[in-house]
Formats: sequence, C-alpha cells, structure tokens
Amino acid sequence: MRIGNQHYRTIWIEEDHKETVCIINQNHLPYDLVIEEINSVDEMAVAIRDMHVRGAGLIGAAAGYGMYLATSGFKNTQDHSVLDRAARLLKDTRPTAVNLSWAVERQIEAIGQVHGPTEKQRIALETAQAIADEDANYCQRIGEHGLSLIADIRNKKRGETVNVLTHCNAGWLAFVDYGSALAPVYAAHDSGLKVHVWVDETRPRNQGAKLTAWELEQHGVPYSVIADNTGGHLMQHGWVDLVIVGSDRTTYTGDVANKIGTYLKALAARDNGVPFYAALPSSTFDWQIRDGVKEIPIEERGDEEVKYIEGITNEGRKEKVLLTPLKSSVVNYGFDVTPSRLVSGIITERGICEASEAGIMALFPEKQPVA
Amino acid sequence: MRIGNQHYRTIWIEEDHKETVCIINQNHLPYDLVIEEINSVDEMAVAIRDMHVRGAGLIGAAAGYGMYLATSGFKNTQDHSVLDRAARLLKDTRPTAVNLSWAVERQIEAIGQVHGPTEKQRIALETAQAIADEDANYCQRIGEHGLSLIADIRNKKRGETVNVLTHCNAGWLAFVDYGSALAPVYAAHDSGLKVHVWVDETRPRNQGAKLTAWELEQHGVPYSVIADNTGGHLMQHGWVDLVIVGSDRTTYTGDVANKIGTYLKALAARDNGVPFYAALPSSTFDWQIRDGVKEIPIEERGDEEVKYIEGITNEGRKEKVLLTPLKSSVVNYGFDVTPSRLVSGIITERGICEASEAGIMALFPEKQPVA
Repeated sequence: MRIGNQHYRTIWIEEDHKETVCIINQNHLPYDLVIEEINSVDEMAVAIRDMHVRGAGLIGAAAGYGMYLATSGFKNTQDHSVLDRAARLLKDTRPTAVNLSWAVERQIEAIGQVHGPTEKQRIALETAQAIADEDANYCQRIGEHGLSLIADIRNKKRGETVNVLTHCNAGWLAFVDYGSALAPVYAAHDSGLKVHVWVDETRPRNQGAKLTAWELEQHGVPYSVIADNTGGHLMQHGWVDLVIVGSDRTTYTGDVANKIGTYLKALAARDNGVPFYAALPSSTFDWQIRDGVKEIPIEERGDEEVKYIEGITNEGRKEKVLLTPLKSSVVNYGFDVTPSRLVSGIITERGICEASEAGIMALFPEKQPVA
Repeated sequence: MRIGNQHYRTIWIEEDHKETVCIINQNHLPYDLVIEEINSVDEMAVAIRDMHVRGAGLIGAAAGYGMYLATSGFKNTQDHSVLDRAARLLKDTRPTAVNLSWAVERQIEAIGQVHGPTEKQRIALETAQAIADEDANYCQRIGEHGLSLIADIRNKKRGETVNVLTHCNAGWLAFVDYGSALAPVYAAHDSGLKVHVWVDETRPRNQGAKLTAWELEQHGVPYSVIADNTGGHLMQHGWVDLVIVGSDRTTYTGDVANKIGTYLKALAARDNGVPFYAALPSSTFDWQIRDGVKEIPIEERGDEEVKYIEGITNEGRKEKVLLTPLKSSVVNYGFDVTPSRLVSGIITERGICEASEAGIMALFPEKQPVA
C-alpha cells in the first residue's frame, strides 16, 4: 500500500543481494520509517520475537523468508540440523499465531522435495516468495469480498459514511500487503465509498494508535483514534455500523483468537446488533482445534509493556515513561478468544462464510479437521 | 486511609486557617504526594475541572467546600449573585457526575436558611464538613455491606484468595475516605480475608494504573495492573470472582454511569456468570432519570488525553509523550452507561439492593422519582 506516494510491501528481497531480506521495522512507526536488513534466520527470529514485524500474515511470510535464510547456513555446513534448528527457532518466537508454523512446515516440505544445498536454497526462495505473494493476493481478495458488506450498509444508510470499528492492526502492516480487517476498508475507500474507521488504540502495545492510525493516514482514509474502553459506548449510540477484526488463529469451528480485548468488542457488538466479522486468509485456520477458548495457547508477555509506554516528547525525542507505581505487579496476556457464537461471519480469500464448522468446511472442502 | 503510616482524607480544612481547604492534588500521583491549598471557589472549580480532585464523592465534597469558600466572597460584597455564580461555576465543571449539583443544592438550601454573611459562612462550613463526614461514613458502611459478598465467595472457595476486578478508581481517592468499590476490599483485607485486585489501567487518564494501584499498595492490598482489554479473557478462564465498580450517576432504575469501559466489563461478567456490582453512596442516585443510556449526559474530553500520556522517565523526570501520529483525529468520551440488566446489585450505605426501581425504592422509600 501507499507510504506517501510510493508503493510498499512490509517485507521483500533485496534486488541486488538476494541473501538479504528487507523489512519495515514497525517498532519505529509512526514516528520513523526504518527499513531493516535481515541477513540470517537468527536475525529474523529476533525481528519476529521483538515485533519488528508482527501480524498474522507478516510473521508467516517472515518465517518463510527466515527458512530461506537458513538454507544459506545449510549450504555452508551441509548439516541438516541447521534447518531443524531454524524451524524450531522460528516456531518458538510467538506461541499464539498459527501462520508461523504453517509457513515453516510449508518450507520444510518444499526443501525436502529437492536435493543438494543449491537446489534447496532455490526452492526455499521460491517458496518464501510464493508465501508472500499468496498472502498479498489473498488479502486483496478478502478486500473484494468484504467490500460487499460495506457497500450493503452504505445502501441501507442511503450513501452516508459507513463507520467501521477495528481493534489492533490487521492492516497491510500485519500482512505482506492490503491487510485482512482493513482490506475491505481500503477497497471501499478506493472505490469512492465514504468510510470512517474507529481505531482502538490497543493497549498495551498500541498497535492501533501507532500502526493502524499511521497506515490509514498514509492512504488517506478518515479515522479517529479511541481508547479501548470506548467502543461499547459508540455501539450503544449507533455510531458503529460494522466491526472487522483480524485473527492470529481461527479454529475450524469459528472461534477467533485475536489481540486481547477483541472479545469485549464482540460482546458489545452482539449486545447492540452490530455485525462483527473476522477477516483472515486461510493460513490462519487451525484445523486441529475445536474449542478455541480452552485450547488455543495464549501468549503472556512482559510486565514492561504495561508499566512503560514509548512516545515522542515535545522536543521530538523518543522516550519511554513509567505509568504505574514502580513496584506494581502486572499481568499481560497478548490475545483472547472470541467464541464463534459472537462472530457474524468470517471473510476469507474464497468469500464470506458463517463462523461454524459447517460454514468453514463448505468454503474449504479439501481440508480435514483432525481434532 | 493510609499513606505510609499516616491517616489521610482526600480533602480537609486547614486547622489554623479555616478559609483554606487542603486537597491531595491527584494529578501528581503515583509519583509525588502534593498537598494543594485552595483559597477561593474559582480555585476549587479549576481543581475539579482539571481533575486535581476527581471521583464521585470527592467532587461532591469539593463542591461543598467550594460553596463555603464562596461565602467569603459574599461576606466581602454582600452581593447574592456571588453565590449564584459560584453555584453555576461549580456545577458546570463536570457534566456527568450528579454529586456536584447534589452538594451545591444542599449548600444553597443551608445558606438560604440563615441570615447575614457571618451566619451564612458558618452554616456553609458546617454543611461542607457534614457532606464530607457523611461521605466518609457512608463509604465505610458500603465497605461493611460489600464485605459480606466477598466473605461468601471466600467460603465457596474454601478460603482461597478472592479475585476482585475493578475499573478506574473508586477507592478512597475518589471519595473523602474508604471509597465505594474498594471499600469492601479494604474491609476484607483489614479483617484478614485474602483478597487480590485486578486493576484496569483505565485509559485514557489511567486512574487505575496511577491511583487505584497506588492506594492499594499504600494500604498493603495485593493487586495486579492489567490493560483495559484483559478483563474478558480473565473472566473466561475463571480468574475473576467478583467485579465491583463505582458510579458517577445512577438512575433510580439502576442504570450505572461510570468511567468509559465499565459497560464492556459488565458484558463480560454477564457472559461468564461473574457477579457485577456497583458500589455507591446514595448521593450518586439521580431521582429524575429513568433511562440512563438515553438521558445521562456523557462528558466529552479533550484530544490530548488520548494522544499524549504522562509518565516518569528513567531519570525520574515527569514527561508527556505523543502516542499517535501528530495529526490523528481523536474522540474521547469520559463515561459510559451500564444498563441495569447487567448489574447484579448495588451496594449502598443502607445495604445491597437489586439494580431496579423496586430494589432501589425499597431501600430509599423516602425518595420520590420525578421522571
């Protein structure tokens, strides 16, 4: 999508030096646009773990490129354990997102099908590019399918602005391009339909206030940042027409793991008759888990994300400040699970389906739930 | 309650100079304990509007003392409009809280019953002190009534720690002493019952992370600060036994206006079978409003509360930092309304009642709803 007038993806291969992967280091947004060069699987693991890259699709793509970088190590050593270690390393960076292991497994299968280090490296690059291209392509299609929901509401509102609420960042920064939850918003905006986005700031890491706000602004889409506490009040008063969120893992029964706080917005949507959709490429489905609340592992993150926050001082300096008493105890879960009963539908690259096993399996009949 | 080993109230009259009212300026907490001297109704209005003092009971008490300070002005000028202006000034500082106008009206009635400026000043001081004492006394009783709820849960859990979730600050800092939502927690802790508090940080002003955390820590009550997004996840997993919140205005039908985000927690409590109580002295009731969601005016506050946040740097300096893109548009509502259907009960100074017109009128039979 657009940064200023230039088109970017969130991750790409350096044209002149194919053993370097470039990423936008998202820890510097919205203040600075920093392009970081990643030259090894270890560097990629750090970039994923420390959230230079984050978001369901993007960490899948990053893991794909990470496995490609690992094939260089394999080329030097001819030691298969290098690839095994790389796979484990990447999978262990973040426990909740399913795209990570999905991408790593896809690479392992591809790499295993050819012989010799050069061939392995070639196929790994091809696969990494395919994962990234597919992610961008699927997100574009999610946008097209989701656009119909927004257009329907616009028609009911006789052309008035459609207000979409989103939580966290499931925009193009969370994928390779386009995004999942924001793809329909971009498609609507680009087609001339009037749309406005309520952006949950999304504490503790503020991906809404930092990333969603920034990418909407760069693309020219009207938005307002709100505290995470605000969505329920807006829905009670009819100021939200539609909620669209992303997902980090979705069970084949339609339970949606997404950034902590998503469940609260789903409850408010249900209480006020506001449609609540999750938008996700099929790589986000977990075909093995039936009960999301009970079975999806929820990442617990460090205290400092809640106790401290980073921003920009009046003098333009980046500064981290303490928000609580110094010795406060803190609990910091990264995700929660919204049960399928609260989800109006799931927007995928193949279309929109009911958030149920029947709905999902009808769109993906080739899949076999293994629970 | 305790700060270190000393007992404090949030507002008091200077012993040696009765025309000075002292407050704890809460904008400096949890970093510094700053006692501010207030010498005029104009200074008191600023203190309320800029939230040096905040919280339902405390701003009522502050308004009571504010009217007392205004009687000095009256003494100098003998001009009745001085008192009218003071009443308007105080009432206009915060639109949602009902205690403000309740305290101002009580003062106007008292002042009107005596003649001569000295008498008026005397009765105004007496009334201000009575309002403050009554607030402390009522909160203490709320603690005793609410303690029974916590003790019942402790018995069901066979003595295990009871986990109470609270939103914003309805502790002693929000009142003259004891607090409303936290009064039962203090009563439980002081009686040796094991209790732990989940403290919602409460963006945008972080009264939870700053004030509730601080006052619980000063009193030695175990607590954990959580992002506002986290409560639903905790309730899904059985880690919350009871939610207690305060209220800034409660309709006689049981709808509860409280800090923005309260409604979301009430929805999660209902969805998970967790009891959800509002604790409030009867001064918080609005006997004129039937439908809280439709009729209670909701304060809209400035952009900067969402865009900027203040904290302490590593070097111990207070610093305000920008959290969003500089030009982000922001919407900032201060409160929301939780409909009575989501409220398990209301804890008042007279006991616990159902959140309904019948329940409330049974406890306060002398009141006449005027809607």
